[in-house]
Amino acid sequence: MGLFVEEGVAYKAVEDVDLGPKSDEFYLRANVKAPRMAGLVVKIFVWFLESRILGPLLVFVLKRNNLIHKLVSNAKIEEAPVFVPSHPYEDCTEQQVIELDSNMSPPEKVQQAANCLPSADEKLQSFVAGSLSFMRWTVMDYSKAYASGAITPRTVAERLIAAVKDSCKGPLEMSFFINHDAEDILRQATESTGRYKRGEPISVLDGVPIAIKDEIDCMPYPTTGGTKWLHKLRPCKEDACCIERLRSCGAILIGKTNMHELGAGTSGINPHYGTARNPYDPNRISGGSSSGSAAVVAAGLCPVALGVDGGGSVRMPASLCGVVGLKPTFGCIPHDGVLPLNWTVGMVGILAGTVEDAYLVYAAISDQSVRHIPGTKHPEVKIHYPLLQQSEKLKDIRMAKYGEWFDDCNDEVRMCCMRALERLDKRYGWKTLEVTIPEIETMRLAHYTTIASECNASISSYLEKLKAEDLGWDARVVLSIYRSFSSKEYIKAQKIRNRQLKFHKKILSEVDVIVSPTTGVTAYPLLDDAKETGELDYINGAALVRYSIAGNFLGLPAVTVPIGYDKLGLPVGLQFIGRPWSEATLVHIAHAMQVACSSEYKKPKVFYDLLKKE
Amino acid sequence: MGLFVEEGVAYKAVEDVDLGPKSDEFYLRANVKAPRMAGLVVKIFVWFLESRILGPLLVFVLKRNNLIHKLVSNAKIEEAPVFVPSHPYEDCTEQQVIELDSNMSPPEKVQQAANCLPSADEKLQSFVAGSLSFMRWTVMDYSKAYASGAITPRTVAERLIAAVKDSCKGPLEMSFFINHDAEDILRQATESTGRYKRGEPISVLDGVPIAIKDEIDCMPYPTTGGTKWLHKLRPCKEDACCIERLRSCGAILIGKTNMHELGAGTSGINPHYGTARNPYDPNRISGGSSSGSAAVVAAGLCPVALGVDGGGSVRMPASLCGVVGLKPTFGCIPHDGVLPLNWTVGMVGILAGTVEDAYLVYAAISDQSVRHIPGTKHPEVKIHYPLLQQSEKLKDIRMAKYGEWFDDCNDEVRMCCMRALERLDKRYGWKTLEVTIPEIETMRLAHYTTIASECNASISSYLEKLKAEDLGWDARVVLSIYRSFSSKEYIKAQKIRNRQLKFHKKILSEVDVIVSPTTGVTAYPLLDDAKETGELDYINGAALVRYSIAGNFLGLPAVTVPIGYDKLGLPVGLQFIGRPWSEATLVHIAHAMQVACSSEYKKPKVFYDLLKKE
Repeated sequence: MGLFVEEGVAYKAVEDVDLGPKSDEFYLRANVKAPRMAGLVVKIFVWFLESRILGPLLVFVLKRNNLIHKLVSNAKIEEAPVFVPSHPYEDCTEQQVIELDSNMSPPEKVQQAANCLPSADEKLQSFVAGSLSFMRWTVMDYSKAYASGAITPRTVAERLIAAVKDSCKGPLEMSFFINHDAEDILRQATESTGRYKRGEPISVLDGVPIAIKDEIDCMPYPTTGGTKWLHKLRPCKEDACCIERLRSCGAILIGKTNMHELGAGTSGINPHYGTARNPYDPNRISGGSSSGSAAVVAAGLCPVALGVDGGGSVRMPASLCGVVGLKPTFGCIPHDGVLPLNWTVGMVGILAGTVEDAYLVYAAISDQSVRHIPGTKHPEVKIHYPLLQQSEKLKDIRMAKYGEWFDDCNDEVRMCCMRALERLDKRYGWKTLEVTIPEIETMRLAHYTTIASECNASISSYLEKLKAEDLGWDARVVLSIYRSFSSKEYIKAQKIRNRQLKFHKKILSEVDVIVSPTTGVTAYPLLDDAKETGELDYINGAALVRYSIAGNFLGLPAVTVPIGYDKLGLPVGLQFIGRPWSEATLVHIAHAMQVACSSEYKKPKVFYDLLKKE
Repeated sequence: MGLFVEEGVAYKAVEDVDLGPKSDEFYLRANVKAPRMAGLVVKIFVWFLESRILGPLLVFVLKRNNLIHKLVSNAKIEEAPVFVPSHPYEDCTEQQVIELDSNMSPPEKVQQAANCLPSADEKLQSFVAGSLSFMRWTVMDYSKAYASGAITPRTVAERLIAAVKDSCKGPLEMSFFINHDAEDILRQATESTGRYKRGEPISVLDGVPIAIKDEIDCMPYPTTGGTKWLHKLRPCKEDACCIERLRSCGAILIGKTNMHELGAGTSGINPHYGTARNPYDPNRISGGSSSGSAAVVAAGLCPVALGVDGGGSVRMPASLCGVVGLKPTFGCIPHDGVLPLNWTVGMVGILAGTVEDAYLVYAAISDQSVRHIPGTKHPEVKIHYPLLQQSEKLKDIRMAKYGEWFDDCNDEVRMCCMRALERLDKRYGWKTLEVTIPEIETMRLAHYTTIASECNASISSYLEKLKAEDLGWDARVVLSIYRSFSSKEYIKAQKIRNRQLKFHKKILSEVDVIVSPTTGVTAYPLLDDAKETGELDYINGAALVRYSIAGNFLGLPAVTVPIGYDKLGLPVGLQFIGRPWSEATLVHIAHAMQVACSSEYKKPKVFYDLLKKE
């Protein structure tokens, strides 16, 4: 044709791909060809990227070097595109669950979930006996303390406001929040206090502080998305649906947490609002993009926070900050009132100090009866809630592990994760099964193509109104790349989505979960040169995002649990990826993992104890 | 931002758009700015378009002049993208239908449908009495002739082969088929003859000749898609699912009909295989892209043919050739074994001499129980078949008509369509209701963006293996434009799809069908200069496609019925667009329309009478 077309990979038929342990499928390590850039270098890079002639050429070279042309754009793929990873309802057998009526209100669901929790007494006994070295206060701790009159929501709110104030002091300003309004917090706390006084708390979430990523609409705050401008062009007019549900349970919404600008990065470094620092080491990043939500939970400011997970954005910071991160099945939590930065990969997720708390808030905001098939409400959907008192009794849980992928992380992460698997085996007899997940790097690139295209389509019409200085430098780099994708590349990525759905469906038909580290590295240092310009660190970025993609691109539920620490005391997380709509089993497994590791949990350097006795 | 961004339209919220007759929504006529091009001019145009520097600039100007940037690419659209127009099952009340078990085999379904047909005796009486001037043989005519022994499938096949041979003679070669194999036809006919002799015909379709657009896999033929190369790179290995169903009913598959190259045009002019000429005037086009399928049915070679409708490609040629064209709800006919030129707009459709025959073949190949929600099989889907004996008894059928759009056609088409509506009113008392369908031109451009992007993603990896001369000149123009779309433009088009789904859903909640002409012009002349290069005639193209888009982009069922002729004796069609899954009502209405018009039907200039008595 005389056209300049680079040769693409010809993928073989899905049914010819061996998914077993001895497959000849090649594990391609992320071929990231880009040095870390920050400061002046980023500014020069932006200048090149935004130039009319050189920019497209530079982006072309970047995409070619990172194998996007070969593995995605020009690949030969037989599968039809699948644009949305919605999973139809399938009734499945799950162990140790209760079955729920799908018409219950959020407070009723929370009550049901609370009834499934293990007794707090056991944990207290372990703590007193010294086998627990550190214990975060849970939702049930708050609820019991309020109900007993030991403390009031109002007092907790006052302590919280003081703690946030304290966290803003000193050279290591924690920058947890983009916005929080002391008056609004106190008003909610006073109302909750009144309900407890009258003996009428709405649910166990009544009076419990919950923080919200600044990507979700929550009155009375603007929704900045980590930018300086988005809230001016898109005013927040009402609560997002998930926020409405939390309010209806009596939770106190304590403000909008910091995040990576537009969610378009994995470090959480934000040049406009300061960077949410890691409570385990404030000289290090908390990870992104839900950086603030992970940090506030880790620092004890609230037992739970909401994030949004479009490419591991809940699970990565949760792992780096030593908390639990739960991203349910695509469509399980209504997306109304979340910034529409993408549509087919992102959704609300939950960050919590414990699996139990993630579960309670999941019960409050999720809605399994709407299975994201537009317009349908399946009459026979059965909602399962896990009986967490019985997690340790789960039998024959099978976990798939892809060795080469699992091991593609730093030594300490790997060792820590292997130890965790040994614990599961020793304590519960749960085995891992070696499998091969093909084309993982292809999936990462296809997901990148997708989220980039959707973000660009979402915000491009705003951009014309902006001045360059309204955007952070790293965001400008990212947006230059985001706008480069063709419709062909987008559709090819959706064909890859179909392939991966088939691969994962096959693997998950033989196991309960796929297990992996949550991130390939632990929290890395926040360097001075990154504070103004952000940083471009695609090597660390790829290591952070490596294990997150299936959860977003394929809409599978996934959870990360803290399992230990590296030599520097930085948290390590283990991830479980489940079958669609198998949140009950996933939460069970995460809980069992937490039980097996809880004796090792350590207190972060920055920690506020809101329930402490005077 | 210093970026070159053209201002786009900011669409208002869907709920603020007035869909009533007095709406202030502006009807934007297709702003096509391109003269007709053919011959040398097309070649020069291709040279410019394929040049590395000028090409993209030229395409940019073309897209801007045709308002794609303003109405699609840079538009501000609040709606989330909807990528696939699949419609969930809704049980609806329909008049004069029978309810069917969804587990029946194709022959059983055909039998059920045959039981619903009006008696052929009535039609025969009308014919004998002179109130019918022309009558095409129907499936039931074939079936009865075979069953009575008046003629055998073998004899029909021999006549058919002779007729096709005859049609290839002379200066006006009809070019009906790209491939047909006399031996294979005779083999099938002999088998069918045997079955009738044994008194064991499989169904009323047994022995009935059916032609297949060369976009659908049908053994033993290659599937060329109207090209010289696609079948070499993508060999046809087995029957498409719909072909398998037809075979299982005993139909004789008589070959692969001509089509516009890659389906990427509305004229049906094919430089490689000759152009299927219009049986009503062989100096004129038959329309595209299912040109051959429309022409063979019009010329009496078979009562039914299959086409594929991605942008009116079944309905336009059906209308231009004076036959019925039925495009059911998206997903209603399995897409397996159809060339994957696009995924979200195209599907198999049926061209037939009469509504009854379209209905019989629809019964054979459709599958309403799979409602295109991947993986689901709704347990309570009710399949309705229309009792065509009772079409004239339908009560209070309400038809929506958007006057400005309806009238945007040439005078004779408009007058003919208005007369047809008057007939429906006089004969059945069915009224039209004036409405406003907003943003129709935007929808056309969004559909174009979608089909262009999908076609490019589908075939781009083949193109690298081709030489320029493997492609027709007009196809090269089209592909140059097709490859220009960005992922942003594709996603914006899907947001427009969501808006239009909402508009149409609202309108269709108050009426049974939307009514319009099928095309804005009748068949135009096939000029000599177009035969080698094809032609680019975007003004006629826009007039042809004007009324087709909702059927494809929104997945709504639509049917065209011949209602009369212009002064030159060229057929005019009227289109009904229905609610999702309301094929029963749609077929009923089309049938009633046919009954009201059938006294006027004229015999085409080129016509073969395969059932004539010796």
